[in-house]
Amino acid sequence: MLNGQMTALGKKRSVIREIFEYAKKRSGEIGADNVFDFSIGNPSVPAPKEVNEAINRIVAETPSVVLHGYTSAQGDKGVRDKIAANLRKRFGADVQGDDLYMTCGAAASLTISLRALCNAGDEVVLIAPFFAEYKVFVQGVGAREVVVGSCPSTLLPDMLALEKAITPKTKAVIINSPNNPSGVVYDEETLCAIAKILTKKQAEFGTDIYLICDEPYRELVYDAKTIVPYAPNYYDNTLVCYSYSKSLSLPGERIGYIAVGQKVKDHDDVYAAVCGAGRTLGYVCAPSLFQRVAAECDGLTADLGVYKKNRDLLYEGLTKAGFSCVYPDGAFYLFVKSPEEDAYAFCERAKKYELLLVPGDDFGCKGFVRIAYCVATERIERALPLFERLAKEYVK
Amino acid sequence: MLNGQMTALGKKRSVIREIFEYAKKRSGEIGADNVFDFSIGNPSVPAPKEVNEAINRIVAETPSVVLHGYTSAQGDKGVRDKIAANLRKRFGADVQGDDLYMTCGAAASLTISLRALCNAGDEVVLIAPFFAEYKVFVQGVGAREVVVGSCPSTLLPDMLALEKAITPKTKAVIINSPNNPSGVVYDEETLCAIAKILTKKQAEFGTDIYLICDEPYRELVYDAKTIVPYAPNYYDNTLVCYSYSKSLSLPGERIGYIAVGQKVKDHDDVYAAVCGAGRTLGYVCAPSLFQRVAAECDGLTADLGVYKKNRDLLYEGLTKAGFSCVYPDGAFYLFVKSPEEDAYAFCERAKKYELLLVPGDDFGCKGFVRIAYCVATERIERALPLFERLAKEYVK
Repeated sequence: MLNGQMTALGKKRSVIREIFEYAKKRSGEIGADNVFDFSIGNPSVPAPKEVNEAINRIVAETPSVVLHGYTSAQGDKGVRDKIAANLRKRFGADVQGDDLYMTCGAAASLTISLRALCNAGDEVVLIAPFFAEYKVFVQGVGAREVVVGSCPSTLLPDMLALEKAITPKTKAVIINSPNNPSGVVYDEETLCAIAKILTKKQAEFGTDIYLICDEPYRELVYDAKTIVPYAPNYYDNTLVCYSYSKSLSLPGERIGYIAVGQKVKDHDDVYAAVCGAGRTLGYVCAPSLFQRVAAECDGLTADLGVYKKNRDLLYEGLTKAGFSCVYPDGAFYLFVKSPEEDAYAFCERAKKYELLLVPGDDFGCKGFVRIAYCVATERIERALPLFERLAKEYVK
Repeated sequence: MLNGQMTALGKKRSVIREIFEYAKKRSGEIGADNVFDFSIGNPSVPAPKEVNEAINRIVAETPSVVLHGYTSAQGDKGVRDKIAANLRKRFGADVQGDDLYMTCGAAASLTISLRALCNAGDEVVLIAPFFAEYKVFVQGVGAREVVVGSCPSTLLPDMLALEKAITPKTKAVIINSPNNPSGVVYDEETLCAIAKILTKKQAEFGTDIYLICDEPYRELVYDAKTIVPYAPNYYDNTLVCYSYSKSLSLPGERIGYIAVGQKVKDHDDVYAAVCGAGRTLGYVCAPSLFQRVAAECDGLTADLGVYKKNRDLLYEGLTKAGFSCVYPDGAFYLFVKSPEEDAYAFCERAKKYELLLVPGDDFGCKGFVRIAYCVATERIERALPLFERLAKEYVK
């Protein structure tokens, strides 16, 4: 009688949640210090000090009815203008304040974009490995996900498979770079290849295919040479879904935006559809205080030094121990090849050493595990000998 | 090719928005001081001082990764426990912290509840006058709204019509008390009558019918004798959708909750469906700082003295001038009978006096106008002579 799909979704614990509960139980048994939980992608470094400074200043200086009052549904005009100016400056983006729609974070950016673009029966292409909730969001708007694999050695999209997967029903392709769960960054060549395929298919089918670029990890890259190309510069029909959750370590505050650049086909209709979708889903406006905080702190990042150190330690330690893993340029995840076919079995074996990893199956990739290194560095230092012992179990 | 319904929704300016734009234009022409905009339901009194104090204290005392980190999807456990304890204390509510689901405000509470309960083709009963966005939310989950009228002299539900409107397809009835746009409070007798009808119809059809009680205006009542009964105490199958927007003057911050009391039929399934619906719509968690602020300030209100004074002045002035209006016990709206059949024509005539009112048609009631009195009292004092002159135009 209820919406059974919703009940099932609410009841089904995600694998990550299962591990979280196990970690809690196990910590009670042997002490939290002896449990190595690498399951959760929750920023472990504080927000930059400018965030709390901005909160204090804005609260002190802004009259209450303005500060805590409704902004326009799209977001405060001054906030949007400032963020758009930064996008133009940083990426040469063809975007004005009126092309931005402030959201309650990346998940809202995605559900609103999908609702704006999709009709029931449309297809949305996901590229494995992908963030597990994409499936929920796509199905939630009555569309159907079509999963395309990646090249096993690079975890970049399998372009042949992508081209084949696109049909006259394809409304959108979602990409995520830097990638959760792999940490891989889509380079310029990759974006050019995707753009070429989508452009070709648009012409072939006479349809519009939108690229939805989910980029909460944009600023989380650790090598000077790593550049995260700005997708709309390669393919006009791109919607950028951004969130400040990871860059500013603010995942609980729910603040982000959708950018519908000027070059998007039927720009005004798409932007209007985004507004209509936000309204339909019950998003009245993004939280007003944090809209202003985001505008003041746009472009800043939390201290990424910890993540870089963690990545280097973990990547080096694991490869030395014999594990195999694509070098992660960004985000705070490693996607490690499971030394046995069944990643669940491997995760069970890791548990014996109190190492808690997430099987890649939910990310659309069997035979891998995700290791979230947004933890205290000391945890990694103490975990590495355990990983070494785990690796030895697989030496024949 | 896009979702045309979303584009249309995004492009269609609401009547209130039209008036807002007109007010801006007109203010430019004759000065804001001479334009009397009664269109917007935006709190005009500051948040209680405890709100900003709580923000400052919480920010100073809470480690950043906790303060700004993800809470559980349902909301922080301590926050939910505290709010539930208040509900038990204030209303004898049969509700625990684990029965609450924190949301991004009332609109989110409604869209999540509707998504949790409804399947495509279900019917949801609205009682006119109703908040115009209800239609958008109901249609947004693929359900169909069935509108029931009110008794013209009380603006309380027409119980005969309500009983007739309920079919085997009825999944929910939405009520809103204190009411936007009428200010009317549903008294105990009204709730008992609704409960009786729903109970009877559940038995007759062998279905479950949920009462969704939208109550952002709960605390906004102005007479000591006015009691807003707690709906779940009259009908078990009730979901309470609450928001702190109006009570704490925080509409931009988007914070509220859904309460699924212990007596709701299939409680665990309904609560799980709420969680699933929140996930599907992209609500990861309610804003974390304001969850904590809400818990600390739950039960407080902004200074309601201004609203009471405004209500008294306006109600007395308008009825003395010859207008007809049900006495508004709460919220910050008067729903005035239009002295001519066409409320749009009446609003046009009011414009000549720079009085900006909202025709009742969008609230499901022709022949009425809504006057939002959440403005500075001085505005009302200066507007009353203009209302008097407007009234005289209708004296034959």
